[in-house]
Amino acid sequence: MPSEGPSTRSHRDQPFVQSAQVEWETVGQGVRRKVLAHTADLMLVRVDFEAGAIGPLHFHPHRQITYVADGRFRAHMGDETRELVRGDTFLALANVPHSVVALESGTLLDSFTPAREDFLTPTA
Amino acid sequence: MPSEGPSTRSHRDQPFVQSAQVEWETVGQGVRRKVLAHTADLMLVRVDFEAGAIGPLHFHPHRQITYVADGRFRAHMGDETRELVRGDTFLALANVPHSVVALESGTLLDSFTPAREDFLTPTA
Repeated sequence: MPSEGPSTRSHRDQPFVQSAQVEWETVGQGVRRKVLAHTADLMLVRVDFEAGAIGPLHFHPHRQITYVADGRFRAHMGDETRELVRGDTFLALANVPHSVVALESGTLLDSFTPAREDFLTPTA
Repeated sequence: MPSEGPSTRSHRDQPFVQSAQVEWETVGQGVRRKVLAHTADLMLVRVDFEAGAIGPLHFHPHRQITYVADGRFRAHMGDETRELVRGDTFLALANVPHSVVALESGTLLDSFTPAREDFLTPTA
């Protein structure tokens, strides 16, 4: 039986990953994440933002779709900007710079293909 | 400017897909979905369930991660069963049979790699 306690270890290829099994990782001021279910070519990551927190401009070869699960965000994608609310999504194609600002506290769900292997390496 | 009204057309490769732009499609008794942002190798789909509705057992070569955005579900994956609540996830590897039962009304977010091209063809 796998442990039901929180853990920072990877849950790669596990059929079920429950939120309570995964520890939060602080990844910026007012920003924390949990890497949820993942396999080599697909990964789901929950990212919680305090009001005013930012996801700074960055890019990566992975394709990413982000879903606003809660809150209100201003998102920049390439040269476009949009205000997004619960239920809205954005798509980052390979190497397109993107960033977000949390206009209120909220939650994003980021799905990636392939998996962000860099997220599985402890930053400490 | 793209239309801001609801549409059943595909939003492939669009950087932003807002929920209000996409019409619901009924896909089963008490089950409806919206295909949100998508590109060839990644697709996000929102699926809303009434209490008691089911996602029948099925399988596909696409890898799938499902996030419980709201509600409570019993999920079957291969030969395992788990009750999942908001924030929990399951992973369907290629061709592994899976199904869900909504124990109360709720919402699942399904991410797929590659995209479910079959979802983009009208069923009418």
